[in-house]
Amino acid sequence: MEKIVNPQREEWAALLTRPQLKTADLAKVCKEIFAEIQKDGDRALGKYTWFFDQVRIDRLEVSEQECLEADSQVSEVLKQAIRTAKRNIEAFHALQCMDRNEYVSSEGFRCWQEARGIEKVGLYIPGGSAPLFSTVLMLAVPAKLAGCQEVILCTPPDRSGKIHPAILWTAQLCGVHKIFKVGGIQAIGAMTLGTETVPRVNKIFGPGNQFVTAAKQLAVHYGVAIDMPAGPSEVMVVADASANPRFVAADLLSQAEHGPDSQVILLTIDSRWAETVEQEVVSQLSELPRRDIASRALENSKVIVLADMEECLDMVNEYAPEHLILCMENYIEAIPKIKNAGSVFLGNYAPESAGDYASGTNHTLPTNGYAKAYSGINIDAFVKKITFQEITRKGLVALAPTIMTMAENECLYAHRRAVEIRLEDQKI
Amino acid sequence: MEKIVNPQREEWAALLTRPQLKTADLAKVCKEIFAEIQKDGDRALGKYTWFFDQVRIDRLEVSEQECLEADSQVSEVLKQAIRTAKRNIEAFHALQCMDRNEYVSSEGFRCWQEARGIEKVGLYIPGGSAPLFSTVLMLAVPAKLAGCQEVILCTPPDRSGKIHPAILWTAQLCGVHKIFKVGGIQAIGAMTLGTETVPRVNKIFGPGNQFVTAAKQLAVHYGVAIDMPAGPSEVMVVADASANPRFVAADLLSQAEHGPDSQVILLTIDSRWAETVEQEVVSQLSELPRRDIASRALENSKVIVLADMEECLDMVNEYAPEHLILCMENYIEAIPKIKNAGSVFLGNYAPESAGDYASGTNHTLPTNGYAKAYSGINIDAFVKKITFQEITRKGLVALAPTIMTMAENECLYAHRRAVEIRLEDQKI
Repeated sequence: MEKIVNPQREEWAALLTRPQLKTADLAKVCKEIFAEIQKDGDRALGKYTWFFDQVRIDRLEVSEQECLEADSQVSEVLKQAIRTAKRNIEAFHALQCMDRNEYVSSEGFRCWQEARGIEKVGLYIPGGSAPLFSTVLMLAVPAKLAGCQEVILCTPPDRSGKIHPAILWTAQLCGVHKIFKVGGIQAIGAMTLGTETVPRVNKIFGPGNQFVTAAKQLAVHYGVAIDMPAGPSEVMVVADASANPRFVAADLLSQAEHGPDSQVILLTIDSRWAETVEQEVVSQLSELPRRDIASRALENSKVIVLADMEECLDMVNEYAPEHLILCMENYIEAIPKIKNAGSVFLGNYAPESAGDYASGTNHTLPTNGYAKAYSGINIDAFVKKITFQEITRKGLVALAPTIMTMAENECLYAHRRAVEIRLEDQKI
Repeated sequence: MEKIVNPQREEWAALLTRPQLKTADLAKVCKEIFAEIQKDGDRALGKYTWFFDQVRIDRLEVSEQECLEADSQVSEVLKQAIRTAKRNIEAFHALQCMDRNEYVSSEGFRCWQEARGIEKVGLYIPGGSAPLFSTVLMLAVPAKLAGCQEVILCTPPDRSGKIHPAILWTAQLCGVHKIFKVGGIQAIGAMTLGTETVPRVNKIFGPGNQFVTAAKQLAVHYGVAIDMPAGPSEVMVVADASANPRFVAADLLSQAEHGPDSQVILLTIDSRWAETVEQEVVSQLSELPRRDIASRALENSKVIVLADMEECLDMVNEYAPEHLILCMENYIEAIPKIKNAGSVFLGNYAPESAGDYASGTNHTLPTNGYAKAYSGINIDAFVKKITFQEITRKGLVALAPTIMTMAENECLYAHRRAVEIRLEDQKI
């Protein structure tokens, strides 16, 4: 980890620069694959699954038989853990469902919002070394709470054409309607365009590598919404001397093991204390199974020593971290000053892993500085809020001068007329 | 208006097709202008303002003097109308601010969300024949309620280098911080990249033509969020014999006058009643100042006669209209069946103009079928919802088996370790 002591404000932007994502270069590849899916449907999915995943898939949709097998392959201990996590995630996300918010004017009209689940949503679960069944929970639980009517899931098959049983079991538990063995650009293309087997959806959710990210960006041009732009995962830890260096080191490493492009930044005001953390990182690293990945991530990581806690929080807001851990006394007082972050973990006993899995918050969060403009996944992401208005004749009479004056001044005379004609009506 | 009686379900998709938007062709032009803004800043803005708007601007930012002049140029009647509309818009949008939603587990942890206004937002107000001061209200009011700290506005100058006084006055009233005389692709580029004068923002809002839309789509690739994709405005009216044909005709025309590409669709179950509406449209059209625009829009418009109200509501959901007017008995019973729409107007006395200006709902709404996945503008669009979690040692002990089991099964051992190390601590 690189250590920087008291950098000048002018240097902050450069210091906090993230590695550039190269999605633009992939746009052309994505367009070609999308065009082929549009033309050849499932056949194109088969071709690219063979090309990228080196496996031939006879049947894209996971069968009931495969789901039954998965049930017998997942241990009861893991099932119980997933059920407990699901309970917390459900409880927290259920609180996010909108209350009725009606504006009743005494003049004779009322306006309100109602939420409707997005009808068809597609969840993407990446493949790779680790089976991300936790992401199935994070996406499928709010989708169901929101009232989405069709929830489908795409995930790449392994070399033997199978999907990890924990992913299948969790998807079943959460009520996912259909699961397809297709990944990468071709999965996003299938959900964007629809094929004989994979239905077109209204919105696509889920993490992925740069190929998936580029494909999701392209999907938008075909009228499909996406959850948010994605980048490598990251954590920023703000710690004072009240923090336990062993815990902090463990949190930095748990972020670093995600991938070699993970971002890990520690902010503190105590240079000597920071050294203890650095030593702890080295010592804990050697015991980690994924130490190769973690040490590569640590090469890009930083310890930044600043003058005071105010400055630390300013830097937090400039960086806008996906995950923010506040290991400091009086973290409660810091909360109102946090303007830009995805998810915040408070105190010595709130490791990022708690939110990654089980406490109830969502782990699909804005990376790459997007926390300045985007929320993490929550119920809002799965609904549309429709406005309604009911106006009585009396109400329209009261609103009429306002509407008619404004419409006239915007030169929209038919807008004015639509009110006037209703007022004339009584005279007839 | 074309009339279609009892179309087969298979024909619906073709029948409801919207005109294709051609933003892809504009991507290249946008990229070039963005690159020039990145290189030359304000100078590039001046160049393109001259090129597109045929006017030379010495000072991009509107001066205090110009704001004072605007104050004297707007009539007291219009000011009063804008103030009344603002009061309703504020009242309705204030109700959308999130309540505290805390999940407190008896096991010793709690999770909650807090909303934070997006720090820097840019509002775009199109130029053209009509001064869209109502759109200033619709964007600036929720931005201020949400707590956005910097609210800037870009709008193209007219040939004499001025901005319509009603736009300036409304922006002042709503507390917009800075107003810039720049429009089109160059305005979106300036807010995306920042120049010497125009600050870079986190999110860009507002309607615009195909150039603005293409530029907003490009802005996303530079890390700036946008409100939603835009297309021509549209209304769908569902009416039964209880509806007043004169009112319905006036509503259809008020949509048609927006532009020649506006979409206007009437659904009904009574073919003879529809004829009365068609006659009313013809007769009212002749009296409209904007009849040329409206009649061109009507060429693409449709009257569709269906078997029953159920079928009408199915077609509503398939089309997902920006504006939906339900002029029917028992419209209250229809509400739960509305799945896809931007904003819904209920009964004979709720013309679209009410929501366009004054009742309190927002008029920045999803067009082009985007109501299937997007909400209209509301407070959510101006905030990020950050999750927080506080976990006691006892809470972590309770969560530990769940987190550790799941982390291990996802092969993320450092995630597991971050919990384990905290539990070991007591033993020391």
